[in-house]
Amino acid sequence: MSLVRVGCELHYQVINPSSFLFHVTAASTPHQTVHREEVRVEPVKQYDICYLGAEDNRVFRLQAIPGELTLYYQARVGLNPAVDSPPQIPETEHPELPEEAIPYLNPSRYCESDRLAAFAMAEFGHLDRGYSRVAAICEWTYEHLKYRSGSTDSSTGACDVLILRSGVCRDYAHLAIALCRALCIPARYVSGYAVALEPPDFHGFFEAYLGDHWYLFDATRLVPVEGLVRIGMGRDAADVPFATIIGAATLKKKVVSAEELTEEIPQHTSGEEPAISTA
Amino acid sequence: MSLVRVGCELHYQVINPSSFLFHVTAASTPHQTVHREEVRVEPVKQYDICYLGAEDNRVFRLQAIPGELTLYYQARVGLNPAVDSPPQIPETEHPELPEEAIPYLNPSRYCESDRLAAFAMAEFGHLDRGYSRVAAICEWTYEHLKYRSGSTDSSTGACDVLILRSGVCRDYAHLAIALCRALCIPARYVSGYAVALEPPDFHGFFEAYLGDHWYLFDATRLVPVEGLVRIGMGRDAADVPFATIIGAATLKKKVVSAEELTEEIPQHTSGEEPAISTA
Amino acid sequence: MSLVRVGCELHYQVINPSSFLFHVTAASTPHQTVHREEVRVEPVKQYDICYLGAEDNRVFRLQAIPGELTLYYQARVGLNPAVDSPPQIPETEHPELPEEAIPYLNPSRYCESDRLAAFAMAEFGHLDRGYSRVAAICEWTYEHLKYRSGSTDSSTGACDVLILRSGVCRDYAHLAIALCRALCIPARYVSGYAVALEPPDFHGFFEAYLGDHWYLFDATRLVPVEGLVRIGMGRDAADVPFATIIGAATLKKKVVSAEELTEEIPQHTSGEEPAISTA
Amino acid sequence: MSLVRVGCELHYQVINPSSFLFHVTAASTPHQTVHREEVRVEPVKQYDICYLGAEDNRVFRLQAIPGELTLYYQARVGLNPAVDSPPQIPETEHPELPEEAIPYLNPSRYCESDRLAAFAMAEFGHLDRGYSRVAAICEWTYEHLKYRSGSTDSSTGACDVLILRSGVCRDYAHLAIALCRALCIPARYVSGYAVALEPPDFHGFFEAYLGDHWYLFDATRLVPVEGLVRIGMGRDAADVPFATIIGAATLKKKVVSAEELTEEIPQHTSGEEPAISTA
Repeated sequence: MSLVRVGCELHYQVINPSSFLFHVTAASTPHQTVHREEVRVEPVKQYDICYLGAEDNRVFRLQAIPGELTLYYQARVGLNPAVDSPPQIPETEHPELPEEAIPYLNPSRYCESDRLAAFAMAEFGHLDRGYSRVAAICEWTYEHLKYRSGSTDSSTGACDVLILRSGVCRDYAHLAIALCRALCIPARYVSGYAVALEPPDFHGFFEAYLGDHWYLFDATRLVPVEGLVRIGMGRDAADVPFATIIGAATLKKKVVSAEELTEEIPQHTSGEEPAISTA
Repeated sequence: MSLVRVGCELHYQVINPSSFLFHVTAASTPHQTVHREEVRVEPVKQYDICYLGAEDNRVFRLQAIPGELTLYYQARVGLNPAVDSPPQIPETEHPELPEEAIPYLNPSRYCESDRLAAFAMAEFGHLDRGYSRVAAICEWTYEHLKYRSGSTDSSTGACDVLILRSGVCRDYAHLAIALCRALCIPARYVSGYAVALEPPDFHGFFEAYLGDHWYLFDATRLVPVEGLVRIGMGRDAADVPFATIIGAATLKKKVVSAEELTEEIPQHTSGEEPAISTA
Repeated sequence: MSLVRVGCELHYQVINPSSFLFHVTAASTPHQTVHREEVRVEPVKQYDICYLGAEDNRVFRLQAIPGELTLYYQARVGLNPAVDSPPQIPETEHPELPEEAIPYLNPSRYCESDRLAAFAMAEFGHLDRGYSRVAAICEWTYEHLKYRSGSTDSSTGACDVLILRSGVCRDYAHLAIALCRALCIPARYVSGYAVALEPPDFHGFFEAYLGDHWYLFDATRLVPVEGLVRIGMGRDAADVPFATIIGAATLKKKVVSAEELTEEIPQHTSGEEPAISTA
Repeated sequence: MSLVRVGCELHYQVINPSSFLFHVTAASTPHQTVHREEVRVEPVKQYDICYLGAEDNRVFRLQAIPGELTLYYQARVGLNPAVDSPPQIPETEHPELPEEAIPYLNPSRYCESDRLAAFAMAEFGHLDRGYSRVAAICEWTYEHLKYRSGSTDSSTGACDVLILRSGVCRDYAHLAIALCRALCIPARYVSGYAVALEPPDFHGFFEAYLGDHWYLFDATRLVPVEGLVRIGMGRDAADVPFATIIGAATLKKKVVSAEELTEEIPQHTSGEEPAISTA
């Protein structure tokens, strides 16, 4: 097990009375334990904790009046991932898929898998059906995209990325998810913190359902998957933005951190990685 | 209460071993009671009943070998909708929205509400915030689209519909849903049977969350909303196709029916309708 | 006749050996006379004058090595537009269209008129067929779009603009052109200088073929059409960018000016304008 | 030289008075000689011959009243292509491109080359700059697309094709053209007749400007390029549809033929072909 301290500070200038939803808290799963959590809102104000979507993502919900608003969040998170050997993980045949995985075969706003069937079959249809095929999708995504901040925007979907050949973490995840779904492999978007991410920021990656688990993948290769700390899951990035604002407010400053407190997260970021499952 | 007999026959020629999911069964809700249900698969074969997605849509799941496959389904459904007076139904302010409604503000594959904010505000931003605003969206959709079979396909989304100005029931629903979400009104797609639909077929319509209920709307005005029988709900049509096939099979024949057994469903299809809630 | 002084300074940092095409020179037409033209390239270097496309747009063409590159251009332009009375200008029936106007009915990269037939007919199909119909398209475009720098980019086309409801001058022109073509009115993009444009910059507007002339329109209403000075014409903005660079160079500074030397350009920018023809 | 007889019969049911433009006549070029041409319109009616666009495509233009309308066209065409050896044909550096080739670097309705720069550089940027690079683009297009009638429609562009991985001749040409332009190789669409095309129909292919000629390419590999008979050229298929109808008419029957009268067109349809130039 490794221990990671994650946190963020989000400073807003609120212009009109606004309703906020924050997807920033570390999730609790059998493999991810939240030890000590500090939340502070300034000016002091009440917030609700609510649970959204099919995955019950934990969200802070609050209302703010015009003026400054800051959310501080910090937690210590124990990561105890299940580690499997990739060669032993097959794809799950459709009849054996559990109910909760099936909706993650559907196309979504940023993962238009319905349009990518022919592409996915041509590029990946001949490969062995298992963990290695999803790894091949990540490899392809990594090799064919260029990571470039600002090259995409909030309306960019997987098909755009495939054409433009550049993007940021969410675009890498969207493309890989769409390709998985096009091959009938359930895949979902995960937002989180990431140890060793430079520059530090929230991160987006994904999970594919294989064997009888959700396995973590990060096509950007920016960080080791062992250092990914889950916030929430959804169909795509639309389901788990770090902040949703109904009203009018400007983000003035964003500080995100994720530091390893132990020394157990391997620094390899590619190659012969083990299969990691944390859901 | 009215009583409706709904049913379908779906005949397939299965080419390769295939896995089927059928979204065809009437849902049970406080306002919709399923009385007598008959299911037959030919050749005789076992099927599972499973429940998919955030809304636990009931689905038949089965595997088929090459050859013919037919699903017969029939049910008697009692409809006992809650009927409210439209002028008394306000929109729900974001802070008061229940957790389960919030994900239905997110954009989805066929409802790209993120791109429609300016359009929706310009056309509907000045209207009174309540049931009448969703009715105005339906009115606009009805007035501006032309119902034309074959004018759209399975990749057509709300933005395409807005440009092309034609579509079928799912396109009407997608556009209206996207416009609702763009105005911060939760909206979801509903698949179902529809009394008096000509020619008879499965139907697609939608619900918007207002006051503290989901209210039914059908921008096509093809049928009275009082005669809509719910099958399933989702982000958009991608979540509730009448059949999902993993494998290879051809639909040879489709017969869908929905007949009123009592005489209680009013035949008005527009105008001063009451607000109907069946979820 | 009015006299206008137009000019620009374009400063580049050339990174790799690069080939430049500049669409910046005032065109000579029966209604637009170029009196005194100064061109200077620094460091001093030869340039060719070439004439591109169906409209023989005059272009400066030169090669540059890494380092600084500046183009200075200035001209005095006499504007002597044909002025007609809008009510007397009909649309031209297709059989009467001259050969040179016909290609301007075709869809182009940023004017996807093929997708807008139903929209255009619904909004403008019932109007009188003449100058006033194009004026109505401009009015609609002006009323429904919001002028916002940075809201669109170089891949934004008319259909995007129709969805997003914002844009800059080129987007206004593209949408209006696409709508004209969808109604079988030939329309083409015009790049130019514009007296009284704030902040000063190159401008994009359009012409529609009516009666037996090309008439100028500017859906942005930012400036009087009488003060528009033509640079070049094309299918859309792709044909007349102020600079095309094959290689690698960064625009460091751009200064554009257009001043009236006489006092003959009326300052109305909308309403009961006369029909202006300068081609 | 080879001799080919080409022809078409186009039968329409004209519903409303309509204006027709037909792009069906064989072009005359230094390498393509039209020997004997027969044109018949039934019922007998006058038609104009006009010349459209930058390339002066020859077009029949006529008006029809409601009723039947048939156009018969037949010609004998001598093909005398310039044949070069591919290894000796370089790409033309931008400064050396002739004026008439430069507009064919611009993106067009169905060839969105502006979006494909990164893709084209990644796939083809490292290849030798010459005929062989365009051949590689054709090879890639042929290998990655599946020819399927009905898989695309009149609004499908190169980016769609790249995603969907299927199309018909015009889609193959559009994708290859867009990739050429993205690499700064002028490319244009050519419509024509094709010896040995099965089933017989009009065909779409393209030309790229290399060395100091336009060279013919056909990424579909359906027919030998030596048997291609040019009708017209344009930015993309929007410029050279076999028929443009302003009004309302239904195509009832279309017969297209192209037969070799000599035996000089080689039947190879791929591999080590010579470079053919017929413009």
